[in-house]
Amino acid sequence: MTDLADALGFAETLADAARAAILPHFRAGGPARNKAAEGFDPVTLADHESEAAMRALIRQRFPDHAIEGEEFEDHPSDSDWRWILDPIDGTRAFIAGLPTWGVLIGLAHRGRPVIGVLDQPFTQERWRGYPGGADHESPHGARRALQTRPAAGLGEAILMTTDRYLFDGEELSSFERLRDACRLTRYGMDCYAYGALALGGVDLVFENGLKPVDIAALIPIVEGAGGAVLDWTGAPAGEARPLGGRVLAASSAGLAQAALARLQPAST
Amino acid sequence: MTDLADALGFAETLADAARAAILPHFRAGGPARNKAAEGFDPVTLADHESEAAMRALIRQRFPDHAIEGEEFEDHPSDSDWRWILDPIDGTRAFIAGLPTWGVLIGLAHRGRPVIGVLDQPFTQERWRGYPGGADHESPHGARRALQTRPAAGLGEAILMTTDRYLFDGEELSSFERLRDACRLTRYGMDCYAYGALALGGVDLVFENGLKPVDIAALIPIVEGAGGAVLDWTGAPAGEARPLGGRVLAASSAGLAQAALARLQPAST
Repeated sequence: MTDLADALGFAETLADAARAAILPHFRAGGPARNKAAEGFDPVTLADHESEAAMRALIRQRFPDHAIEGEEFEDHPSDSDWRWILDPIDGTRAFIAGLPTWGVLIGLAHRGRPVIGVLDQPFTQERWRGYPGGADHESPHGARRALQTRPAAGLGEAILMTTDRYLFDGEELSSFERLRDACRLTRYGMDCYAYGALALGGVDLVFENGLKPVDIAALIPIVEGAGGAVLDWTGAPAGEARPLGGRVLAASSAGLAQAALARLQPAST
Repeated sequence: MTDLADALGFAETLADAARAAILPHFRAGGPARNKAAEGFDPVTLADHESEAAMRALIRQRFPDHAIEGEEFEDHPSDSDWRWILDPIDGTRAFIAGLPTWGVLIGLAHRGRPVIGVLDQPFTQERWRGYPGGADHESPHGARRALQTRPAAGLGEAILMTTDRYLFDGEELSSFERLRDACRLTRYGMDCYAYGALALGGVDLVFENGLKPVDIAALIPIVEGAGGAVLDWTGAPAGEARPLGGRVLAASSAGLAQAALARLQPAST
């Protein structure tokens, strides 16, 4: 049996290890290897060292748990518990020297993410999500409970997506209808956008093509702060198998429904 | 006569005052007023308090200098010296709780920016530019001289712009031609993009519609780090009157020329 409070503390140990592995490489000019057959999907030594450090700690502490990570082969297991790791979510931002990437550590029970940590080593911010709550700490303030902001209407909402050019065809039309309905749209933040939503600054995050490691840790954080993480049909993203794909995160279930209603053309 | 080393130290005093004025408001949920007739151009109490604090210090120390700022009327003067202030560049990011806005403090001599400070209060980063150099400090490292990275070809370059939807018609075509030629494009960073260029992570920043306060402080920083700040015809942005408009910042003069060549359709 795995105790969740214990697992949450251990997830922070993993985040500490990832920070120590990554920070010496940030803005140090190291090379990025392209792992994509087409286009540019960079991976760095920092990604590898961060994930390797976390995996070693998990195998020592919870040798029976499964491990899934961005950079190495799955470590399968019959256990109900699976660690889902993105050693650097936002490697493109990382190699550009921007501070909006993050380390994502999720723990799923029978496929459902129940604990999540988002750590930003450069800003020294850490978000934690767990059943019934979420919190945040930074050099500017001690750990405090998170609450998304009271649901504004769509016309008052701030929308985020990482890169508009990741949408094409019908997906682009859906994004642009949603963008037109919102007050403001900001771009380019990867996992940090979900952190800003949990902090109460952003209302909606709209993305496609997510892998399990991109979203597992963020679901407990957004849900713990009172928000919703759904797919584009309105089903809970935490129930998807595999996790990921098309995701809409919202500060409330009501705002999520208002956003989903904009994804299809209005009938006339 | 104004001594530049003295003025640079004083610009840091302004940045300290701005930090103190802004940080209590960041992520505090305060209201944003819309100052645009159409669309959404937010201004907050933090913008006002930051600029008021800086203006009071300037009028005390350099009563004969002109002052131009985003939120208040120009303070005219016959002096050759003009302070050009953006109390929060990236107010949209600020109200969304993102860490990529900044305080911009420029000092121009006869219209030409000669000193610039970019301060990020939340990450506690500070960039300084001055004739012949630029530097950066953060909680992760003592002040160090900045140098843009050795000019890669356009096919290796990382391009940044804040919001692709700020381009329309021919401007959008130019942006998309440049984007197609670059290795990677990232979005949404306002002044922080120029800071990342001076740090050697980003190679190109491409923007339109800039006001003098959006660019004055950034020109000495990028130039001091070895980069170039031009308009879209290739003329030095520091010579433009008024400052601003369409800007291309590049890690080197050579890369800037390669980028400018992409802005027009290829002749066939």
